[in-house]
Amino acid sequence: MTAVMTANTQTNKRPVILTGDRPTGPLHLGHYIGSLKTRVQLQDTHEQYLLLADTQAMTDNAHDPDKVRRNVLEVALDYLAVGIDPSKTTITVQSYLPALAELTLMYLNFVTVSRLERNPTIKEEIQARGFGRDIPAGFMCYPAAQAADITAFKADIVPVGEDQAPLIEQTNEIARRINHQVGRDVLKECQALIPKFGRLPGVDGKAKMSKSQGNAIALGASPEQIKAAVHSMYTDPDHLKVSDPGKVEGNMVFTYLDAFDPNTEEVEELKAHYRRGGLGDMVLKRRVESVLNELLGPIRERREQLAKDPDYVFDLLREGTNRARAITQQTLDEVREALGMFSFGSR
Amino acid sequence: MTAVMTANTQTNKRPVILTGDRPTGPLHLGHYIGSLKTRVQLQDTHEQYLLLADTQAMTDNAHDPDKVRRNVLEVALDYLAVGIDPSKTTITVQSYLPALAELTLMYLNFVTVSRLERNPTIKEEIQARGFGRDIPAGFMCYPAAQAADITAFKADIVPVGEDQAPLIEQTNEIARRINHQVGRDVLKECQALIPKFGRLPGVDGKAKMSKSQGNAIALGASPEQIKAAVHSMYTDPDHLKVSDPGKVEGNMVFTYLDAFDPNTEEVEELKAHYRRGGLGDMVLKRRVESVLNELLGPIRERREQLAKDPDYVFDLLREGTNRARAITQQTLDEVREALGMFSFGSR
Repeated sequence: MTAVMTANTQTNKRPVILTGDRPTGPLHLGHYIGSLKTRVQLQDTHEQYLLLADTQAMTDNAHDPDKVRRNVLEVALDYLAVGIDPSKTTITVQSYLPALAELTLMYLNFVTVSRLERNPTIKEEIQARGFGRDIPAGFMCYPAAQAADITAFKADIVPVGEDQAPLIEQTNEIARRINHQVGRDVLKECQALIPKFGRLPGVDGKAKMSKSQGNAIALGASPEQIKAAVHSMYTDPDHLKVSDPGKVEGNMVFTYLDAFDPNTEEVEELKAHYRRGGLGDMVLKRRVESVLNELLGPIRERREQLAKDPDYVFDLLREGTNRARAITQQTLDEVREALGMFSFGSR
Repeated sequence: MTAVMTANTQTNKRPVILTGDRPTGPLHLGHYIGSLKTRVQLQDTHEQYLLLADTQAMTDNAHDPDKVRRNVLEVALDYLAVGIDPSKTTITVQSYLPALAELTLMYLNFVTVSRLERNPTIKEEIQARGFGRDIPAGFMCYPAAQAADITAFKADIVPVGEDQAPLIEQTNEIARRINHQVGRDVLKECQALIPKFGRLPGVDGKAKMSKSQGNAIALGASPEQIKAAVHSMYTDPDHLKVSDPGKVEGNMVFTYLDAFDPNTEEVEELKAHYRRGGLGDMVLKRRVESVLNELLGPIRERREQLAKDPDYVFDLLREGTNRARAITQQTLDEVREALGMFSFGSR
């Protein structure tokens, strides 16, 4: 296995991308536009690894491992349904890659507590989760775990939201520190890939689409669920009569058309019309609904088909995880050797 | 392998002891009297595991992995030389037990940062090492790593110095928290075993014998090294002439006779004589020297023999580590299953 992987790695000149999701709920339109769509494109030009990050999900869901477990399969279904091709992309389960845990513990020795505490992403997330002083130690340590993920796969590129750029900086800091100590580049530094399309707001206009906020449209949403969500969309509260001029900015109907309607020209015309007045919200909402049905219809269908055969999905995950296990174990072996750690037979 | 281990575990009713050492230097007389001697006795009545804790040693030696690597073999030689019998005691290398790293990351989610910071042992050690705010994150996390070690081996008893009792408390806290969450005792709580003989002072009279303080007598010390160390021993600075009455308390010559001289009756007579006056330090030092030579001579000889065949030692470590890998992996599987974590095929 290792020999085969080495051969592949040596002949494969494509840049390596590592990305993934914490399996805490089925994925939604925000994930689609923010990352899944790009991943489907990148798998043709890059060596892509998708991490079902259940170990990381436990750092703030230790009280509810059931949720994490169930959603490993759900997220895998989402991946396959949107067009992630397991012959091109390796999908792998984090908790079955022990080398990641071993590298994490190693890296924690190369970063100080105060450095972790200063990490802006961690600071914000601690606040968002209301942890206060009772932050689980695993949560504070997760930048080191992420550094382990990224470096173990020798990722060149890591797609992250703008708010997560400090995590990439932390990863490269650890890599540089170890490279400096061993006097050569045993670990690869990576680059952040910030998505073109920023964060998709929820249908209620709130900054972030999120299942827990009830403002999300899941990738597997039924036509009824799509209809209900679109009809509840936040538009322009001052646009009372059809004849009134309306505001396009911050109007979810247009945000969603910008994100999902392939006919950008018509969307621009609609915006102009809406601004002038004489265009009603219902017409626009019906258009959003139709655009989303066109996008999500085939995804939902594939998802339902796949969900009938979970063993097929488990087999894919097992295969991908075996492949990833060889790669991550090799990196661990390299780091150990470079640092001069013990091995049976070492003097 | 797993099946065999299960059978062994079920039939073996001996209480399980886990202990070990951070391989940062060869062991010395302080280790012998504080723990090794007891371990040699306990292996006949207990199921004993000795952990060469190289992963833990890295938490404050990340800058010098060479030292840790070299001392794995040195400490193993010390174990075998003092009479640890690998057919009775399993000697294992921590960094080759990935389940320990995986359990550590898991447990870090069940303990808060502030709880780790409050740990008195950690507080003291941070001060002793002069870390200040620049404490490596791995060092702060090591109570969770120790909880992983202890629970992974299902230890009933953990010999620790008095100052380390809070670490045992922390272990049991994590075990109780997880047991409570899953509604049954998947993890075993353990008891601290505080050694009868407290800490052996250095030959200079300082509280702790330590290689870095230059006040230690290594188990492999040569007769010349023993002679030099004993002759430099701190006795009673006011005992100037042989005829002067001398002080026994805090006098290293008597501390060492108490610790190592098998003839306690004669030692008591010597104390009385010294207190009265008329007994010179040189006579006593020659006695200490002879007692230590008698103890360390055979140990040194066995050590030198074993050191000539490191491959034999590596084979023993490999065997012990394989045995320990099966045990620790089984515990990890049990914890995962109890918590309801993902497995291929789980719904």
